Order: sequence, then C-alpha cells, then structure tokens
Amino acid sequence: MQTRSVETRAKIVQAAQELFSKTGYESASVSEICEQAGISKGAFYHHFPSKQSVFLELLSDWLKGIDLGLEALRSNPPEAEQSLVRMADILPEVIHAAEGRLPIFLEFWLHSARDKELWNTAIAPYQRYREYFRMVVEEMDPEGAIDPAKKETAALAVISLAIGLLLQGVVQPDAADWGAAGRESIRMLLEGMTRRSS
Amino acid sequence: MQTRSVETRAKIVQAAQELFSKTGYESASVSEICEQAGISKGAFYHHFPSKQSVFLELLSDWLKGIDLGLEALRSNPPEAEQSLVRMADILPEVIHAAEGRLPIFLEFWLHSARDKELWNTAIAPYQRYREYFRMVVEEMDPEGAIDPAKKETAALAVISLAIGLLLQGVVQPDAADWGAAGRESIRMLLEGMTRRSS
Repeated sequence: MQTRSVETRAKIVQAAQELFSKTGYESASVSEICEQAGISKGAFYHHFPSKQSVFLELLSDWLKGIDLGLEALRSNPPEAEQSLVRMADILPEVIHAAEGRLPIFLEFWLHSARDKELWNTAIAPYQRYREYFRMVVEEMDPEGAIDPAKKETAALAVISLAIGLLLQGVVQPDAADWGAAGRESIRMLLEGMTRRSS
Repeated sequence: MQTRSVETRAKIVQAAQELFSKTGYESASVSEICEQAGISKGAFYHHFPSKQSVFLELLSDWLKGIDLGLEALRSNPPEAEQSLVRMADILPEVIHAAEGRLPIFLEFWLHSARDKELWNTAIAPYQRYREYFRMVVEEMDPEGAIDPAKKETAALAVISLAIGLLLQGVVQPDAADWGAAGRESIRMLLEGMTRRSS
C-alpha cells in the first residue's frame, strides 16, 4: 500500500475506536466514522467492507498485543509457575491497552451470543488462551502428579480470574492495584492446586 | 395496585427482557416493547418513566434472586469455607436465571462506563458482594492469623472468578460444568490462602 493509503486506513481504525468507545459499537454508523476520520465513504469502503470488519481489525490488533506479552513471558521463563504469576504483571498494561477497546469487545461478545458467525470470531481467541494456560499448568507438573481434572480447572480458573479482573479494571481502573491482585490471586490458586494433591 | 395493573407491569417487564436479549438494550425502543407486550404507550409510561427504569427493575429482580441464594447458604453454614465453596453450587442457577439478563446487564455495565449516574446503579451491587465475600473470608480466620491484604485479595479473587465464570457460562452454557469449575476453583483459592500463611 502507498503511504497515503496506509494513513487513511489508520485514520479509519482510530476514528472507529474513538466512536465505538464513546457511543458504542451499535450506535456508531459508517457515516460518523467517515466524518470523524475526515474521509469519504468511498475511501472507507475501499479499505473495509463493513463496520464489523473495522471492529475485527481493532480486536485483532489488541489480541496481538496480548499474544506478544504472553510470548515474551514464555521466552524467558524461570519456571512455569513464575511465568503464570508474572502474567499478572501484564494485566495493568492489558487493561490500559483495552481502555476504549474492552467495552467494545464485550459489546461484540454480546452481539456474538446472538450471531453464530460473529461468535466464531469472538470465541476463537478465548479457546487459544485456554489451551495456552493448560500448557503452562502442565509444565508445572512434569511428573504428572496432579489430577488432570484439577489442572484443567486451574487453567479455566486463571482465565476466569483474568476476565473478571479485566472487566472490573476497565470500568474502575483506580479501585484496586489490578496487577497485584492478579498476581496474588494466581499465586493462591496455584498454591492450592499443588498443595492439595501432594 | 389492582390486579390488572400488576399484570400490565409484569407484561412490560417480560416483553422488555425478551427484546433486550434478542436485539440488545440499545436497539430496543419503548414502541417495540409496547408492541411486544400488547399495550399502549400511555400504559407503559403509567408504570415506568423510561426504558432504563424497566431495565433497572429487571436487574434488581435478578440481584434479589442472587441475594436470596447467598442468604440461604449463610443461614445454615456448616463452616465459612463450606459456604463459599457451596456458593459455587448456585452458579448454574445464577447462569440459568441470567440467561437473557446477563448480556443485558453487561451491555448496561458498558453504558455505565460512559455515564456516571448509571454507573452508581450498576456498581452498587458489586460493592455489596465484595463486602459480603470479605466477611465470609474473615469468618474463616477467627484468630486473625491471615494477612488482611491476603483476605482482601481472596475476596476480590472470588468475585473475579464468579464474574469470569458467569460471563463464559452465559455465552457457552455447555462448554463446562460451571458449578463444578466454580466449586473447585474457589476451593483451590482458599486452600492457597490458608496454606501460604500457616
């Protein structure tokens, strides 16, 4: 793409994010996005087939950021448990990056519950994280001493904790130290997982 | 209120719930609610000042149900830990009751993040639960042997777990045994909380 085309695309994504988080995904129209971005409708449809496709790009950018954060943790893991606990350290960053995006993601999640095609898009990333956490928990138990059902539960619990903390953190960023809360919660959970089975 | 008036009110609430969960809170209009309920706009405004007030009634009904469930658990508690773990038993029921309501609640939560007045309505119940769980965790530690910060974290973690499990359970009711997942997660968490401090 030419520089100008790249700039236009970035303008659209930026304008859409601002509008979605201000008035909601449902309420924002393509016309408003164009107005906010200072471009024509023709230019919009040159880059995106629909409002939904802009949303998916926003979502995918955000998930890429989370993936990179998790990858960085795993590339230099002192220990599997440490990498899970340190995962909580990226929570404030994820909350910060999610500002204006997580509400949109949730709105989209809700729409997805009513629309199977959207659902596949919204649910795929979540399946990936569940797999990821199951793997990390597995690494904590090289001798296979822990009941597999317990490890499965722990993986699901880590995701549930993360979702719950994110949801609260995004709407009340100052109500708690979300990174510390995540770190300490995950630590308690893993402690409980290993201790109960020894 | 006269019987007919009570019936009309119930019809409005029922119609609103169906519409909100089908098309979303934002998209549903008072006209559509009236049409669905088979009543006039005059009758609607006789009972409710706005669409938002119907939503708040739905929300309050649902929260009352959760309160009753928690109250029942506490009225006959074998032990504080048991009551927290058994709390997970009401999770499937809450998920079931939330069907069609939790998505609306979340949508409302998102709108609240953009509107301070709504926010106070949406946030108050959550503060109540945080207080409730802090109290239950406190009962588990009559001798005050556990670091208060740890108990605070545990209370927040239980809520976060519940929110995360609910959110997943509502959109994927069959993807896991959510009650069992909640029970086992809370157990791990509490085990971690008490063991680490002994």
